[in-house]
Amino acid sequence: MDRLSPPILVVNFKAYHPYSFGRHAYELARSAERVARETGVSVAIAPPFTEIARLAEAVEIPVFSQHADPVEPGARTGYVPLEALREAGAVGTIVNHSEHRLKASDIAWLVGRARRLSLLTLVCADTPVVAAAVALMDPDMVAVEPPELIGTGIPVSKAKPQVVTSTVDLVRKHNPQVTILTGAGISSGEDVAAAIKLGTQGVLVASAIVKAADPYAKMLDMATQALKAWEKYG
Amino acid sequence: MDRLSPPILVVNFKAYHPYSFGRHAYELARSAERVARETGVSVAIAPPFTEIARLAEAVEIPVFSQHADPVEPGARTGYVPLEALREAGAVGTIVNHSEHRLKASDIAWLVGRARRLSLLTLVCADTPVVAAAVALMDPDMVAVEPPELIGTGIPVSKAKPQVVTSTVDLVRKHNPQVTILTGAGISSGEDVAAAIKLGTQGVLVASAIVKAADPYAKMLDMATQALKAWEKYG
Amino acid sequence: MDRLSPPILVVNFKAYHPYSFGRHAYELARSAERVARETGVSVAIAPPFTEIARLAEAVEIPVFSQHADPVEPGARTGYVPLEALREAGAVGTIVNHSEHRLKASDIAWLVGRARRLSLLTLVCADTPVVAAAVALMDPDMVAVEPPELIGTGIPVSKAKPQVVTSTVDLVRKHNPQVTILTGAGISSGEDVAAAIKLGTQGVLVASAIVKAADPYAKMLDMATQALKAWEKYG
Amino acid sequence: MDRLSPPILVVNFKAYHPYSFGRHAYELARSAERVARETGVSVAIAPPFTEIARLAEAVEIPVFSQHADPVEPGARTGYVPLEALREAGAVGTIVNHSEHRLKASDIAWLVGRARRLSLLTLVCADTPVVAAAVALMDPDMVAVEPPELIGTGIPVSKAKPQVVTSTVDLVRKHNPQVTILTGAGISSGEDVAAAIKLGTQGVLVASAIVKAADPYAKMLDMATQALKAWEKYG
Repeated sequence: MDRLSPPILVVNFKAYHPYSFGRHAYELARSAERVARETGVSVAIAPPFTEIARLAEAVEIPVFSQHADPVEPGARTGYVPLEALREAGAVGTIVNHSEHRLKASDIAWLVGRARRLSLLTLVCADTPVVAAAVALMDPDMVAVEPPELIGTGIPVSKAKPQVVTSTVDLVRKHNPQVTILTGAGISSGEDVAAAIKLGTQGVLVASAIVKAADPYAKMLDMATQALKAWEKYG
Repeated sequence: MDRLSPPILVVNFKAYHPYSFGRHAYELARSAERVARETGVSVAIAPPFTEIARLAEAVEIPVFSQHADPVEPGARTGYVPLEALREAGAVGTIVNHSEHRLKASDIAWLVGRARRLSLLTLVCADTPVVAAAVALMDPDMVAVEPPELIGTGIPVSKAKPQVVTSTVDLVRKHNPQVTILTGAGISSGEDVAAAIKLGTQGVLVASAIVKAADPYAKMLDMATQALKAWEKYG
Repeated sequence: MDRLSPPILVVNFKAYHPYSFGRHAYELARSAERVARETGVSVAIAPPFTEIARLAEAVEIPVFSQHADPVEPGARTGYVPLEALREAGAVGTIVNHSEHRLKASDIAWLVGRARRLSLLTLVCADTPVVAAAVALMDPDMVAVEPPELIGTGIPVSKAKPQVVTSTVDLVRKHNPQVTILTGAGISSGEDVAAAIKLGTQGVLVASAIVKAADPYAKMLDMATQALKAWEKYG
Repeated sequence: MDRLSPPILVVNFKAYHPYSFGRHAYELARSAERVARETGVSVAIAPPFTEIARLAEAVEIPVFSQHADPVEPGARTGYVPLEALREAGAVGTIVNHSEHRLKASDIAWLVGRARRLSLLTLVCADTPVVAAAVALMDPDMVAVEPPELIGTGIPVSKAKPQVVTSTVDLVRKHNPQVTILTGAGISSGEDVAAAIKLGTQGVLVASAIVKAADPYAKMLDMATQALKAWEKYG
């Protein structure tokens, strides 16, 4: 799988009930695909494990997993090795999300193994230093998400713009190629534009889209603003 | 979902690559269904998370999950609440497998919540005492699996028959209704018969079936022997 | 080590800074010893790992650990096997505290191994069912602590007396010998008396004593009330 | 606490019974102190939590903890915050040992907080990339220990010299100041010399010393060789 081209909008479905599952998940995935087609923005989705296969079959946009367990396939019960994700049709996985932190060694192991399996990795980090540390492991993308802002609707790009710019500076110093996303609290197209203006290539969003009254409209706004900002600052 | 009627054969697919995934998983599930139909034995399957939805659609036998995370739905990334399993079509879940042990409080919480969601629970235990302790939490089934025998091909019913009979005695003392399965090392129809003769209602099997040259023949042998033993000792 | 005789007051020092450490811990331990001597009540203390050796040398009352790791001694770095606690002078350990929950199998393993090492175990539980389940594992003491009341100052004996009486009934049904303590929210002598009146043999207390302006006075009040209640209801 | 001056010998006591505890631990600590005094080499010890206070009082060489939990002091039961270590007399702590791996974010948090508390940190890593990633977090020392060699008696400096030199190169690229130690399989003075020749400032050793027939002689040999190698290559 090739890296996603910026600007990028990754939609983490999380495990909201009923939004993240079944029919709701299907409609969300189709709306994301429609926005990708209509705007040209790279829109990727990260549904729950149990929804990956169905959605990877239903849509043509990239499907990520929300997590992978740092284990090889084999006598494992209830764990999700990277191979399981690939079999289900995922093209990559989020790693070390703030709600599912991993050991440093396991992040490095997963990133290396995913590369060999041609799976993309999007590694999350809570601080600029951790973002730079995981960037050293050479994932395809890193996302900086100060945990105290996740789910608050307060975008990191507004509340802590210096966290984003420090992340960009520090990450770039140690890894010039990695794609950098902004996460945490992104809730409008304006926030997405701010994130791109601060030097990142896109955003990782969850509740603002998944629980929106009209997820399509919300994603369309974000993608449109992302595009404009990208043309100006990208 | 009603409890499974004995004799019972639960097939844990684990995460063997490629056996537990994709086309292989589909064929395994169809063979299990065929054995159930041909013998009348309750055959249930427990595929990886990522395969549940596909297989629950493809077969009419009960599909279990290998595990559930002790969390409510919501802002969770890469975790599998019981609601995710139900949405995907599972009728129940294995809990506390030897490869995925859980905290005592979390087992009790999952068993109670699964009951309210009409999901069945099969709780594993490594010793008679732990089996009795989890039986007190009122799951639908308990399985005793001495970890040192798992995957060895040495059936607990032969190597440690007293572990099975002590489990049956102790579990029955504290919970007369729960279904009791034997796990660990079951690799032939003869082992299944021995497990039933020792007072349990069926078996939990993994590698002996999943990695068999002919899984259908292996399951047919196990189901046939289970039936004979059940008529004699059940 | 013989079991503690009721009524029992176990003081969990937790890790309050500076209260649980150094000079403060020493004074707390000495006050506990004084209360034990003056009232005849069994007062035991559970200081942090790093304080056990110093305090076990300084006082003659029983010193418990707050936790033990479910591992054998050997090539383990930063883990605390039961043998480490015994070497340091502890006579027992709390197991499965609400702030340090353990896997069901590990609780059973620790309880059995502690018995063989002549160490006492006090196993915590969050519900009557879990209390009965761990009581089956045959520890010396169980304590029921509804997590939502811990540290609130709202005693379980007042807020949820039925949790205490259900626990006593259910635990007694499965284990007639085990000592039963009440935890969570105990903050006065009156609460201790209520806990004993409801059928338990003592209490597990933390912040109300450790962070008290006068820990000695607080423990004396609790021990005195415990004694009175025990004479009446014990 | 100032950083240790090279060459450095850090002795991880682990949890060998009876070697790592009580009288044995005391004698080991005293022997380490004697070697430090006789050779001028920086010898530090890392005993179990329960032995820190006793040994910190008994010897004048630096006492490290084997681990710290990534938690603030407070309502924590059976966890070890950095403050507990400082109160017990430790001057620093090992972090992320191969037998006690931590989440990436927790390593960064511990390293930062230890710095503010004037505690030294020695962060372990299993690969050159992970060593460089943790070096970015600015600890005082990093140690590279390929897990497959730990406890084998096969020194990384011999079996995988390129792991050591790659680590040195990669770590230096991202953090020119950090002290670098070699761990895993170091069992003789010769191994220590090899580790220093490859560009590191010392070693982290456990079983070869702790379980030696004569720990003093073993440490003396290592310290003497370390000194010679340091004069030549340091």
